[in-house]
Amino acid sequence: MSNNPTGEKISFPVIGIVYSCFKEKFGIPRQPGLASAAQAVIEIAAPYNTLDAFEGLGDCSHIWLQFVFHKSLHHAWRPKVRPPRLGGNRSVGVFATRSPVRPSAIGLSVVRLERIEGKNGVQLYISGADLLEGTPILDIKPYVPYVDSVPEALNRMADAPPSVMAVRFSGIAKAQIDAANGYDNLAVLIEQVLEQDPRPQYQKTDEARTYGMKLYEFNLKWRYCVEGSVESIEVLELVPLLI
Amino acid sequence: MSNNPTGEKISFPVIGIVYSCFKEKFGIPRQPGLASAAQAVIEIAAPYNTLDAFEGLGDCSHIWLQFVFHKSLHHAWRPKVRPPRLGGNRSVGVFATRSPVRPSAIGLSVVRLERIEGKNGVQLYISGADLLEGTPILDIKPYVPYVDSVPEALNRMADAPPSVMAVRFSGIAKAQIDAANGYDNLAVLIEQVLEQDPRPQYQKTDEARTYGMKLYEFNLKWRYCVEGSVESIEVLELVPLLI
Repeated sequence: MSNNPTGEKISFPVIGIVYSCFKEKFGIPRQPGLASAAQAVIEIAAPYNTLDAFEGLGDCSHIWLQFVFHKSLHHAWRPKVRPPRLGGNRSVGVFATRSPVRPSAIGLSVVRLERIEGKNGVQLYISGADLLEGTPILDIKPYVPYVDSVPEALNRMADAPPSVMAVRFSGIAKAQIDAANGYDNLAVLIEQVLEQDPRPQYQKTDEARTYGMKLYEFNLKWRYCVEGSVESIEVLELVPLLI
Repeated sequence: MSNNPTGEKISFPVIGIVYSCFKEKFGIPRQPGLASAAQAVIEIAAPYNTLDAFEGLGDCSHIWLQFVFHKSLHHAWRPKVRPPRLGGNRSVGVFATRSPVRPSAIGLSVVRLERIEGKNGVQLYISGADLLEGTPILDIKPYVPYVDSVPEALNRMADAPPSVMAVRFSGIAKAQIDAANGYDNLAVLIEQVLEQDPRPQYQKTDEARTYGMKLYEFNLKWRYCVEGSVESIEVLELVPLLI
């Protein structure tokens, strides 16, 4: 290892791939844990897919994922970015943010480990994930509360969860959710995702506009409503995706 | 990105190099934060060494470092490891541990950000680090307490900091520490490092044996003492390293 690393790159193996309820970037909560009902499965890749390598991990309620921002991997980094959290109009240093467009496009998320299965390989079932379908996983580590949890840490740019918006369901959406079999807590997930308000923050409310995002095998449609100065969201319908 | 990542590797740039009080692996605390007096500097590498890229990071008391276990990078991984924390005699899955010998040799540490300087580049002064001199840094992110701090997380294998050993200083060591200029809290650092007991846990106490580790520009020497069933440490001396 030289002490002048200019231009040096180091390569790491992909140890698994994420299968997620989130099928596109738009709408994914901007941090893990904001949508506890967001479920995903990590399918561990060969030659790492032996249960031996995960023995004891079941003693942990939470795990760290170090993953690749694979949709941002080949984007050119810039020293300054405009985080959506700051309204998109304040520019800060890329290393002061968790932006996916960064020199080493490596993400970091703590998620809940629901269970480990060993069906023809190894599968980790997780929840609270903010991960896109197909995300490559570089490493999995146990969360160690006495080390990783620093509740007294100060972060003046992001000191509390973002405020949330009220979400209600149309009659059609309610019926579609009731009829959708095989999804745990689908209504809760939709509420947790939409209450974060996935729009870029510079977009003004247009009550005539319909928004959509892919969630599981649906195109989730919603609109914004304004009463006085209060905005809320109405879930319109879940359109099955043509597969 | 293929959905069959077997054998796939992804490379990331080194964005900085660590200059640390720890000059060899032996004796480094096994997690960050255990030795708050452990100081290090990250020298950011070109082309990332512009203060613009760090603007706003000073609003954070703590940062995440994603780094390379560069002394373990070319070690073959094994599915099972024997963590020192478990006494070295219990074998668990590598992904259930923070062992440096793992498929993607990427470390993860939260450290305190003391200050950022811009002397002919960019330097991040940090404390509480568990990092070896020369460690390559892949990424730096702000610690976001409402996301990263999960105090209710369970980890049955590592649920509390390890117990510590009493440390006392010989008269020679005290005089040498008093005479050593230019080191902040050197006695505190030595106590924090040694109270963790750096020995492999299978080693039995041998009161005749002298141990040593490199710390800053010294070879720190100590021995173990036994009174009844209680072990303690005596710091013997600080031998300046020949540079």
